[in-house]
Amino acid sequence: LYGYDVPVRSTGELRDAILVAARAEFAQYGLAGARIDRIAKAAAASKERLYAHFRDKETLFREVLAADGAEFFAAVSLRPDSVPEFVGDIFDLSLSHPEHFRMLNWGRLEGVSLYPPAGDDGRTAPAEALDAVRAAQRDGLVDTRWDPEELLILLFGLGLAWAHWPDPRSVTEDAGQIAQRRAAAVEAASRIVAVTDGAADGSDRLATSR
Amino acid sequence: LYGYDVPVRSTGELRDAILVAARAEFAQYGLAGARIDRIAKAAAASKERLYAHFRDKETLFREVLAADGAEFFAAVSLRPDSVPEFVGDIFDLSLSHPEHFRMLNWGRLEGVSLYPPAGDDGRTAPAEALDAVRAAQRDGLVDTRWDPEELLILLFGLGLAWAHWPDPRSVTEDAGQIAQRRAAAVEAASRIVAVTDGAADGSDRLATSR
Repeated sequence: LYGYDVPVRSTGELRDAILVAARAEFAQYGLAGARIDRIAKAAAASKERLYAHFRDKETLFREVLAADGAEFFAAVSLRPDSVPEFVGDIFDLSLSHPEHFRMLNWGRLEGVSLYPPAGDDGRTAPAEALDAVRAAQRDGLVDTRWDPEELLILLFGLGLAWAHWPDPRSVTEDAGQIAQRRAAAVEAASRIVAVTDGAADGSDRLATSR
Repeated sequence: LYGYDVPVRSTGELRDAILVAARAEFAQYGLAGARIDRIAKAAAASKERLYAHFRDKETLFREVLAADGAEFFAAVSLRPDSVPEFVGDIFDLSLSHPEHFRMLNWGRLEGVSLYPPAGDDGRTAPAEALDAVRAAQRDGLVDTRWDPEELLILLFGLGLAWAHWPDPRSVTEDAGQIAQRRAAAVEAASRIVAVTDGAADGSDRLATSR
């Protein structure tokens, strides 16, 4: 109707339109499979205008990865009084926002660093989540023998186990089955964090070697 | 030295050489990023000969995925008397054969079905592993309230949690840190499978809804 480069759009609006189109394209096809001409077309922009905003495909990919990563981690928050439920939230997020989850996986395979959110002291887990684990440990809700980062990454592993399972046939639309998978992941987390008898005897950390 | 299509190779040898080259290429670059000309060159074959064996890039990708998936699953076996250690084996495998792990992830993102190994009764988990979980439950070593498939996928999720963690900066070469991550994953599995008091009271399965 309007052709490419609708003139009423501001530079910022054009940039946003390109990012929206790029997020859909990269989530579906990854870095290598994404096509700049498809992104430009979906954003009703010329390729020239697109490259004026984003130097190359990888620059655009990094921008999308940062945005998706930030949204993914902002969507779940770990509350000290319900650590196992965090796993359920992650599970839900992988179903409600598969595009963020896919983007994180493409980024990992392409070796693209997910700079934000940066963790504290050189760790790569979100700092707020680590703080929440520590608070839960102080409150006696999570076994103090867990290293907070170790535990956090394992919780993500549980919440995303089905989403990562390599056979696409494992995907289901069955609400009952989905609820059962979710409940199992939350139950597993409950058992992991539970303060056991051993924790009370003053032993400090889990074994650090095999 | 010999140029392309070394004549002393049999058809089977050529096919194998192409597959070896394709496995390295796909693991690194994925389906979209892989280049058929690089594969042909690495196998010292012409593109024409390559296409005579494998119809197109996706056909070759499926072949590689099936081979890598079969090797990945064959490399770990779940023994009923050491279910938590299975998680350690998976963890080790992700480090010793990152190319298989990467291939499984590329395949999942590209939506390519990992046909073998096929599970029993329409399930997508390896049948032998499911049988081993059932045996462990019969022997009182794993809580009977776990659905065997649910549990198995969660165990894979634990073993691969670090390998899946989106930030590539989390990769480490530090042997002590690797050992600690492994021990934490195995400990988490121990806690999950542990037969708890509740299991003895005759209650059957875990809650199937939130």
